[in-house]
Amino acid sequence: MLMKVLTKYLWMETKKDKEIVSIHSQIESIAKESGIKEGFALVSAMHITSSVFVNDYEQGLWEDLMKWLEEIAPSKPDYKHHLTGETNADAHLKRSVLGHQVLVPITSGKLDLGPWEHIFYGEFDGRRKKRVIVKVFGE
Amino acid sequence: MLMKVLTKYLWMETKKDKEIVSIHSQIESIAKESGIKEGFALVSAMHITSSVFVNDYEQGLWEDLMKWLEEIAPSKPDYKHHLTGETNADAHLKRSVLGHQVLVPITSGKLDLGPWEHIFYGEFDGRRKKRVIVKVFGE
Amino acid sequence: MLMKVLTKYLWMETKKDKEIVSIHSQIESIAKESGIKEGFALVSAMHITSSVFVNDYEQGLWEDLMKWLEEIAPSKPDYKHHLTGETNADAHLKRSVLGHQVLVPITSGKLDLGPWEHIFYGEFDGRRKKRVIVKVFGE
Repeated sequence: MLMKVLTKYLWMETKKDKEIVSIHSQIESIAKESGIKEGFALVSAMHITSSVFVNDYEQGLWEDLMKWLEEIAPSKPDYKHHLTGETNADAHLKRSVLGHQVLVPITSGKLDLGPWEHIFYGEFDGRRKKRVIVKVFGE
Repeated sequence: MLMKVLTKYLWMETKKDKEIVSIHSQIESIAKESGIKEGFALVSAMHITSSVFVNDYEQGLWEDLMKWLEEIAPSKPDYKHHLTGETNADAHLKRSVLGHQVLVPITSGKLDLGPWEHIFYGEFDGRRKKRVIVKVFGE
Repeated sequence: MLMKVLTKYLWMETKKDKEIVSIHSQIESIAKESGIKEGFALVSAMHITSSVFVNDYEQGLWEDLMKWLEEIAPSKPDYKHHLTGETNADAHLKRSVLGHQVLVPITSGKLDLGPWEHIFYGEFDGRRKKRVIVKVFGE
């Protein structure tokens, strides 16, 4: 088969400093637009204080995730990174735990995901514009 | 070169609630079956309380991993997610730490891994059937 | 389009036991050498006590990352893995938090990354030779 590629960028701007946002339907739309039947979609945060991850579409769990990330990677003043004037070192750590990209398989023209898999953007230093790259390839 | 794709699904059903299971030889078999000489195998858990990861084939380490995950993402009643009737919020967190997918390079028809790299399935909410997708692509 | 593949290996040998090393310019060079205009570079640690990850090029943050990893995945004697004679169980855990691979998109012949995204190798059991595979594919 001959490989095709489609590259798109999502612009994200959350109202809250830390927020979990579904980007699932956008990824579905881009995969459909690509016309690719067999392949993959890379979904990757282009900012280093954000995540892209797959988990459950359940609001209680999103609160659990945020509370847990704050416990294991707390926001606090005494990071070395803050000597630069930044205040978001915790966001860099939190994004590392959840990961910043997923590779979504496409089979028979559809995202080939399990029944509960849902694609999210995780923002840990929000209220400003950031991008997510979506690059679909296959046949 | 022309791209080929092979898609397979592994069915997992662990006897224990939490368990680490080698899926390495199954991935090797699927890569071989694909006939692909240069490419990649995506190995991805299709359930959101499971992981796919690469680490050491050493039973003591598997126990360390499970104990450590319980320390940083404990099983406990007071998660918001449990208001839905679920009891497995910790499994969603644990799976996030280890990750849910790996992309394995294939070179000269073989998994191109280091001497100690071994592919595992991590179950955090087991005793029921779950799937792992294995999608091989390349030439 | 017809798919091309280029496979390279980086040799790493850090002077310190634990160290964060930029491999960004090497990945850029390999992507350029491949001549691929649209595609991806998989960058993956071939050893199970090392990471490959994307974060900020800022030395204070690297110190924060290392200190934080020591807090959540401490070096200590009482791991089961150490019954084998090994002493590096913490390195296996630390590498799991940061992840061991990234898939870098290539668009118009360049790494398609955000303004602050920078590719790093994370060593948690150093002072010996280890490899990172870089496999570029696309057109």
